[in-house]
Amino acid sequence: MKNYDVVIVGGGPAGVTCAISAKNTYPDKKMALIRKESKPLIPCGIPYTLNTLKNIDDDLLPDNPLIANNVEITNAEVIGCSNQNLLLSTGNEIHFEKLVIATGSVTVMPPIEGTEKSGVFLVEKKRDYLENLKSEISTTEKIIILGGGYIGVEVADELLDLQKDITIVEMKDALIPTMDDEFGKKVETILLERGCKVITSKSIQKVLGNGKVSGVELNDGSVLSCDLLIVSCGYKPNLELAKKINLVVEEGKGILVDDYLRTSEKNIFAIGDCAAKYDYFTGEFSNVMLASTAMAEGRLVGSNLFSIKVIRKYQGVLGTFSTKIGNTVFAVCGITEKRAKEKSLDYTMGISTAIDRHPIKIPGATEVTVKLIFSTYSHTLLGAQIMGGDSVGEMINMISVMILNKMTDMDIDTLQIGTHPLLTASPIAYPVINATVDAIKKWYRYQPA
Amino acid sequence: MKNYDVVIVGGGPAGVTCAISAKNTYPDKKMALIRKESKPLIPCGIPYTLNTLKNIDDDLLPDNPLIANNVEITNAEVIGCSNQNLLLSTGNEIHFEKLVIATGSVTVMPPIEGTEKSGVFLVEKKRDYLENLKSEISTTEKIIILGGGYIGVEVADELLDLQKDITIVEMKDALIPTMDDEFGKKVETILLERGCKVITSKSIQKVLGNGKVSGVELNDGSVLSCDLLIVSCGYKPNLELAKKINLVVEEGKGILVDDYLRTSEKNIFAIGDCAAKYDYFTGEFSNVMLASTAMAEGRLVGSNLFSIKVIRKYQGVLGTFSTKIGNTVFAVCGITEKRAKEKSLDYTMGISTAIDRHPIKIPGATEVTVKLIFSTYSHTLLGAQIMGGDSVGEMINMISVMILNKMTDMDIDTLQIGTHPLLTASPIAYPVINATVDAIKKWYRYQPA
Repeated sequence: MKNYDVVIVGGGPAGVTCAISAKNTYPDKKMALIRKESKPLIPCGIPYTLNTLKNIDDDLLPDNPLIANNVEITNAEVIGCSNQNLLLSTGNEIHFEKLVIATGSVTVMPPIEGTEKSGVFLVEKKRDYLENLKSEISTTEKIIILGGGYIGVEVADELLDLQKDITIVEMKDALIPTMDDEFGKKVETILLERGCKVITSKSIQKVLGNGKVSGVELNDGSVLSCDLLIVSCGYKPNLELAKKINLVVEEGKGILVDDYLRTSEKNIFAIGDCAAKYDYFTGEFSNVMLASTAMAEGRLVGSNLFSIKVIRKYQGVLGTFSTKIGNTVFAVCGITEKRAKEKSLDYTMGISTAIDRHPIKIPGATEVTVKLIFSTYSHTLLGAQIMGGDSVGEMINMISVMILNKMTDMDIDTLQIGTHPLLTASPIAYPVINATVDAIKKWYRYQPA
Repeated sequence: MKNYDVVIVGGGPAGVTCAISAKNTYPDKKMALIRKESKPLIPCGIPYTLNTLKNIDDDLLPDNPLIANNVEITNAEVIGCSNQNLLLSTGNEIHFEKLVIATGSVTVMPPIEGTEKSGVFLVEKKRDYLENLKSEISTTEKIIILGGGYIGVEVADELLDLQKDITIVEMKDALIPTMDDEFGKKVETILLERGCKVITSKSIQKVLGNGKVSGVELNDGSVLSCDLLIVSCGYKPNLELAKKINLVVEEGKGILVDDYLRTSEKNIFAIGDCAAKYDYFTGEFSNVMLASTAMAEGRLVGSNLFSIKVIRKYQGVLGTFSTKIGNTVFAVCGITEKRAKEKSLDYTMGISTAIDRHPIKIPGATEVTVKLIFSTYSHTLLGAQIMGGDSVGEMINMISVMILNKMTDMDIDTLQIGTHPLLTASPIAYPVINATVDAIKKWYRYQPA
């Protein structure tokens, strides 16, 4: 039996980041990474394997960082665990001092009649499955995508490039329901212009076809025909290994962890999609699963395996996220107006639209809209939604830093930023500041003595 | 004599932002903006009037925001002031309750023999002057640019697009001397590849020619011929009006102001390039002049004219700045390594290079390098330099927010950011975090018990 100081189970972004961080912190410890998939994929790149990337293997997570850091990779499944010994599907047993569970998430198939038919696919994070999906797509024309969340719309955007006949069915009132509806409506407009069909506020109640999918029946009884159905209804934590080890878990939410991602078992940590997440604002369970959150957790655990070196008060998941549909980037961080209403938060909204170059006749200029949500009483920034050009991808990260630092309207109003004609909006029009000023103007109108 | 509650002198970004902010805060006050230039330009857009923008008027600061906010615009020069009355070049006199001086900066012509010859130009912020320069450029081939700071290299980049024969002469060891030399050397490489000639560590001691410039003599005695000489050696505060009013000024540094940008005279404020700036780290006078700083000052004063509504402890100028040369963006914020050495700061440097898309085969991917300077003892982030693709323009603003919030290596290590295949580096490679990890690894090696 082989002995390791650290064993990480799971080869996704959380596991890899944790392994590298652990090696940075404890270079002399012996470490192994056990993974089920011999060729793990970059999760957020998966939609782009359908068209933008020539080969699915272009989306593989490279092994070099692990090899360079002397982390031993074993392609196997963990089938049992007792007394800090893991039994692998290869028949081998290995001993760990510290175990990190990074088993990720699994796709959710909603309970709809007929999903067992051929031609019904999930967006799985598995190389061979996707190869098969891609091959099916190449011979079909008419595709229905169930679920208009960000993965669903990214898949649609890719398949439209392949001139496919695409229909998205989303049960909520607008696409990307984690954003406010006006942003989802803009996504819809872009997809419609690209020839996509979009059905919102409806669900699929039956998959039709004789062995192979030929269409779907919606909950209003109407029927749509298709050659292929792609189901993109989210993911849930993969708790298989955690249950084998008898860790305390919350079904559908993840392995319970403390501020340092320690599980109910001494010496066992859980990170990434399989670990329970708590919302930054409410402290309630969060369903947000993002590679960037997984990575932050991986680095924290990697640094703290044998002693607490990186101290933190875990702040909860902010859910900073961006995507690009057509030529427009959409990004969100923290509280949306929709969620502020659901949670009865007392909020003040500020909005601003600008051109992301200056003067506006600089080539490549794109309109950018920033919508901010502030706490009315504390004046703290709670959330942002942005749509615009490619620079929005980093602008939302600036917002993330603002929220994590509990910045207020006044902090942002006197902020020092850099602007440049070829890269940003003009300093006079800079939309993050001007949306803040818009909120401030609302406060000015109501000044208690 | 007309009476105003607020008079702003200067029509650049500081003045305009201040006017709008003042109107947002005090909508009922009567306000006037007096400006010398009837058609003020967007300062940072000036290099781009030489080629990228079709017409110089494409770079005009729009009057709409002032008109929409009911700020009266007067095109005149202030020639005298007594008892809160301004005498204008038009012969009119106006009375103010509050005066804001936003007269900007003027170009610096170094004391070199022969600069009075025709064909010697500065980079003036004046429409007609630039029209003349542009016309001269159209009929000349061989141009020398004196000064390889950011404006000099931006002008060179524009003129290379026009297939001109360009030589830059910079007295420091590398271009853009406000950045570390390896960044300036990279700028040089890009310009050389574009056909530019670059001479560093040399200065011009004489302008040659009979009435019209025909060349220059360098300080090593060598001679370069040219048809046109563009001098880009910086700007100094325009103190003309301040001196007329007998405000306390520091020659070459600006009108002395307190934390709220109040001058030595009650009821008179100064903002933008004409107001003295203090360095964020050292508190010493700073020569940094940026539209974005001017704008932050304009908003602060606009809000506080009649009573302090926006409270701040003035933090000093951070100097967040970005530019694009060829296809590469360069950005800096806070302390460079060069400056850390000059000031004998005890610093720890972290560096990381990544690809700004993921996986790296996503089209449009560009290499991005982030260099960070941390305080060795406090672990606080002091500065950053970045080169890479267009997204660097907003990435440097995220860094600015980090420094202003005094974030440490550990705060950044556990940061929640958003990443996306089409927009950012992978979460595993995200260079701001990985440069921080690089610095952390250096600390790990020296751990006092």
